[in-house]
Amino acid sequence: MKALSLEETFGLEQLRLVEREDRHPRRGEILLEMKAASLNYRDLLLVKGHYDPRQPLPLIPGSDGVGVVIAVGEGVERFAEGDRVLPIFAQRWIAGPPTRERLRSTLGGPLDGVLCERMVISAEAAVLAPPHLSHLEAATLPCAALTAWTALVVEGGLKAGDTVLVQGSGGVSIFALQLAKLFGARVIATSSSDEKLERMCELGADVGVNYKKEPKWGRKVRQLAGGEGVDIVVEVGGAHTLGESLKALRVGGFIGMIGVLSGTRAPVDLLPLLMGYVRIQGILVGNRDNFEAMNLALGAAQLRPVLDRTFPLSEVGLALETMASGAHFGKIVIEIG
Amino acid sequence: MKALSLEETFGLEQLRLVEREDRHPRRGEILLEMKAASLNYRDLLLVKGHYDPRQPLPLIPGSDGVGVVIAVGEGVERFAEGDRVLPIFAQRWIAGPPTRERLRSTLGGPLDGVLCERMVISAEAAVLAPPHLSHLEAATLPCAALTAWTALVVEGGLKAGDTVLVQGSGGVSIFALQLAKLFGARVIATSSSDEKLERMCELGADVGVNYKKEPKWGRKVRQLAGGEGVDIVVEVGGAHTLGESLKALRVGGFIGMIGVLSGTRAPVDLLPLLMGYVRIQGILVGNRDNFEAMNLALGAAQLRPVLDRTFPLSEVGLALETMASGAHFGKIVIEIG
Amino acid sequence: MKALSLEETFGLEQLRLVEREDRHPRRGEILLEMKAASLNYRDLLLVKGHYDPRQPLPLIPGSDGVGVVIAVGEGVERFAEGDRVLPIFAQRWIAGPPTRERLRSTLGGPLDGVLCERMVISAEAAVLAPPHLSHLEAATLPCAALTAWTALVVEGGLKAGDTVLVQGSGGVSIFALQLAKLFGARVIATSSSDEKLERMCELGADVGVNYKKEPKWGRKVRQLAGGEGVDIVVEVGGAHTLGESLKALRVGGFIGMIGVLSGTRAPVDLLPLLMGYVRIQGILVGNRDNFEAMNLALGAAQLRPVLDRTFPLSEVGLALETMASGAHFGKIVIEIG
Amino acid sequence: MKALSLEETFGLEQLRLVEREDRHPRRGEILLEMKAASLNYRDLLLVKGHYDPRQPLPLIPGSDGVGVVIAVGEGVERFAEGDRVLPIFAQRWIAGPPTRERLRSTLGGPLDGVLCERMVISAEAAVLAPPHLSHLEAATLPCAALTAWTALVVEGGLKAGDTVLVQGSGGVSIFALQLAKLFGARVIATSSSDEKLERMCELGADVGVNYKKEPKWGRKVRQLAGGEGVDIVVEVGGAHTLGESLKALRVGGFIGMIGVLSGTRAPVDLLPLLMGYVRIQGILVGNRDNFEAMNLALGAAQLRPVLDRTFPLSEVGLALETMASGAHFGKIVIEIG
Repeated sequence: MKALSLEETFGLEQLRLVEREDRHPRRGEILLEMKAASLNYRDLLLVKGHYDPRQPLPLIPGSDGVGVVIAVGEGVERFAEGDRVLPIFAQRWIAGPPTRERLRSTLGGPLDGVLCERMVISAEAAVLAPPHLSHLEAATLPCAALTAWTALVVEGGLKAGDTVLVQGSGGVSIFALQLAKLFGARVIATSSSDEKLERMCELGADVGVNYKKEPKWGRKVRQLAGGEGVDIVVEVGGAHTLGESLKALRVGGFIGMIGVLSGTRAPVDLLPLLMGYVRIQGILVGNRDNFEAMNLALGAAQLRPVLDRTFPLSEVGLALETMASGAHFGKIVIEIG
Repeated sequence: MKALSLEETFGLEQLRLVEREDRHPRRGEILLEMKAASLNYRDLLLVKGHYDPRQPLPLIPGSDGVGVVIAVGEGVERFAEGDRVLPIFAQRWIAGPPTRERLRSTLGGPLDGVLCERMVISAEAAVLAPPHLSHLEAATLPCAALTAWTALVVEGGLKAGDTVLVQGSGGVSIFALQLAKLFGARVIATSSSDEKLERMCELGADVGVNYKKEPKWGRKVRQLAGGEGVDIVVEVGGAHTLGESLKALRVGGFIGMIGVLSGTRAPVDLLPLLMGYVRIQGILVGNRDNFEAMNLALGAAQLRPVLDRTFPLSEVGLALETMASGAHFGKIVIEIG
Repeated sequence: MKALSLEETFGLEQLRLVEREDRHPRRGEILLEMKAASLNYRDLLLVKGHYDPRQPLPLIPGSDGVGVVIAVGEGVERFAEGDRVLPIFAQRWIAGPPTRERLRSTLGGPLDGVLCERMVISAEAAVLAPPHLSHLEAATLPCAALTAWTALVVEGGLKAGDTVLVQGSGGVSIFALQLAKLFGARVIATSSSDEKLERMCELGADVGVNYKKEPKWGRKVRQLAGGEGVDIVVEVGGAHTLGESLKALRVGGFIGMIGVLSGTRAPVDLLPLLMGYVRIQGILVGNRDNFEAMNLALGAAQLRPVLDRTFPLSEVGLALETMASGAHFGKIVIEIG
Repeated sequence: MKALSLEETFGLEQLRLVEREDRHPRRGEILLEMKAASLNYRDLLLVKGHYDPRQPLPLIPGSDGVGVVIAVGEGVERFAEGDRVLPIFAQRWIAGPPTRERLRSTLGGPLDGVLCERMVISAEAAVLAPPHLSHLEAATLPCAALTAWTALVVEGGLKAGDTVLVQGSGGVSIFALQLAKLFGARVIATSSSDEKLERMCELGADVGVNYKKEPKWGRKVRQLAGGEGVDIVVEVGGAHTLGESLKALRVGGFIGMIGVLSGTRAPVDLLPLLMGYVRIQGILVGNRDNFEAMNLALGAAQLRPVLDRTFPLSEVGLALETMASGAHFGKIVIEIG
């Protein structure tokens, strides 16, 4: 079978479509024919060698994908041939809180990922894809959607009437917007582009703030949230946005720290954290139980992911460059099967 | 000022419109001119003398009402003249968990209630009424809506994709239906009347079950909920419905026990509670913090209570009889001001 | 290998020591040489055929035991030969909330249990035994101790300064007493025997109440708990004790419903549940994550289970009769290896 | 009555013992005769003018104290003359989560504090002092002890078997040590002094780490905690210690951020926060409900605060200098009455 691989060296230009041997599912495993994948910022970092320099090669990248079960190993009851499933990001994180051991089992580094024609995984390490979604749509869920769900619902305690701040228009932020609206919350979105803010508002955002025009957006967002501040921030920026996020947040508010796009190291003033009784929760995707709960929610609402451009498996490098440019809106997806 | 009062004896026919002396708000208090009230099943029990036989008389009944602040005592910063406010049911339960002392301060027994022209309460013991609601609509919130909110959101952890069972079409059940839909949940409703089930479906219920035709509705509801059972039951029936509710519930599910309309004592089989890892939470309305959170949700969604008939203050007895007949759908309200 | 088995019919006198074929551990499995077991009331019900009449026979009973790993299947990293481990009760309940599928995998019915010389289980379905405990002591943990831990710590939110009510001197109640003291809580114990109450006090109980002499013990316990009532009840009695437990409980209190020794069906008055904002949580042992957390606590405190008599594998019937008589104090244990 | 006051300017040398007029308790208020106080690092910052430069003067400093009720206003039921009470730090934070309004009502800035002979407060804004403590001991609880309790118990979910890291030997750290041991947890303590570490171990710490000798103590602490890392960090250092704290913490661990002694601004690497699914919770003392719960725990265990030197009211400046020197171990206390 064909697979996209980093063979010896990191780098966008090092991605190769290679031939890999198929293997049969053993006891407790399933064999998937992959249909589609979607890209995350983590894939870009990983391919460039910026994610974890100790990552051994060769490696098949890609964390988010959808496949159809074409064979099941001995003793598998969870799935049958023909089921359309989504491999979970942390293959051993089924339920409950994370542990080091559970978080070490992630697809697309350290484990081989989804950018391939066929893959074998444990039958425990996948969930049924929501039937109302196309292959391309379903492929966006395992990291991007579940990260937003974990931040808002599992850790943030999202409820109707809350005000949520989402930053930018990347995959997680758009899912966070859609989920927040699904729960009856208000959403304030930031972006550097008025055009993207307009699209966020079409998707349901109540108000947009252009952080290029309003570099000190924290106080403004606080005022837009009725003066007390927002209840929840879905923080994708990291070190350089955290200061403004803290200004935007209400006393006792919650920050789901899901990304560090703007950088990982910056002098952060910790005092507002104390004085505001703020909770910051680092988010690393989420577990299988919550993935299944989210899929029920998506199904009940017939909610659909927002897709940007589609690329074939042979053009993942180009797709990652598109992502790096920041010109996209929603998920960049890969057609496989 | 005029007030409706039980003077010496309990009984629907004992309700008298009497003259009571006005009093000035002291330090920390506010004086309200009442505009509207709404009735709860508790009012019926109380007036009949079935709620708490030790309740001393005379008593002004009525737990749910809306008034306008017409005077403020010394040191009051929370409200100003002209504010339209809702007195909270347990006048001393502001935040956090309940205590015996906090729950002893309820309006309409043991404390004088809202069925009067003017009342003085602590400025801490009220919340602003949502501006999008009429007086009659706003008057339905303090007990009925907040009970549903507390059961579903505060204790039940309601989220999109959950399946919620609501029983009948009383005030709490209809609010529970509306709130569950607001959060993106699925709703299964029971009733003895196909016509009422139809109205529940118009309000958003996904499916209705007529418990007259289907007396063993527990298993049926479980199947309608995808085989595993519902996530949350808003239990208004009590002893005689709990058995079926337990059959309808999924493993690890939640029952918000908010009423005992069908009776308080019946042989309940406790084994399913253990075997199903069920949580039952007794619900007694809720605190001020959660009332304010709910009002934000109602405002954001412009959600409106469902009203049945309106009666004048002089006809509360008739209104309670209407409630007793069970013919109503939604809240029975009283026009005062 | 030898195993204790119900071959064709239920009944204490139907227990047979039979020969069963050994099997090799497959991929992901471990083979245990069992060293000791302990008995629970559930075993008695099951052997008598009162637990689940649909349980197919033959069946090896026994939920709680300890064994040493003597072989590991392919791909097992969790354990190595020589490790001393405790099989978990619900073999598939590793972490997070329970589901029907997770709770269906319990040892000693429907699955074959621990009363045998050797058994094969999934490597995921066991935890390391605390090193400071003997085989007999360690064998008491999987159900009895974990049930008490789940009720008090996981669901009950036990903290120093709380007052906990434990009923009787069965295995779970004694563990609950020991754990409550470990957390700095106060403990009130009930029993029908002054002598047993004395032993409970030696183990740390702050006060004992003889329910034979004080059949209406609810109000008394409430007063002993400072007038407001106890914070947590570990309810083992079920239908006939729940009424008094509710009287003993503070407003907003918690009842961990872990047993129904006094019966499963009785007319329970539900009104105090509402009026007292009571939470009742059905408890079915607990998951592997919490088992491991508990073992850390037991190790840190060098806490030891209280053992009653020891029987050989061939006399489990007699051991169960001893349990039925109620004369024991602490766990009845079985020596195997 | 006499009071210690900053009259016109900030500065240790600006503290004056002045005469202030007594006032009578109004409706809902109580008059206290102060017996003792204790100092916190916040008092030092505030007196120096480093806490909040917008703080208006004159101001009576001091957040932690104990007094006896010598008069009660109209309508007060919570306390009677002769009760020995502890004013709560945030006078309006009674229960539930914090809000801006609740946190703005703190003693010793912006409100006048406890370093005076008599003070009037709302009867809602105090709790009974634990009877087993002397005046000087009781005076240490309102900020220092409650901060440790809130971090560990309310937000950190402390349980037996957990490993807790405490930093240094300031008031909060010693209380955290004592509370952690009370709950059956393991404690690792850091300090720059072997002698202080020895005293921490005498108080129950399981192991001490001298951060002078071991500047990169994070990894060492992780190993001492069994390789996975500690469950809870009580972070008093702030910006310059957070990096090592994150190294010491297990995946999914909890950091209670209660102080910023080492500085408020430093480049913090946020990546470990994400990758480790870390929760950081800013802690600002705590509410009255939790204060009362803590006092029950202290009483049940007869736990006593650790006191350092005692100063008279006239030597608070000297006492604050002693605190600034860092030579103390435990709480510096002030004798008043």
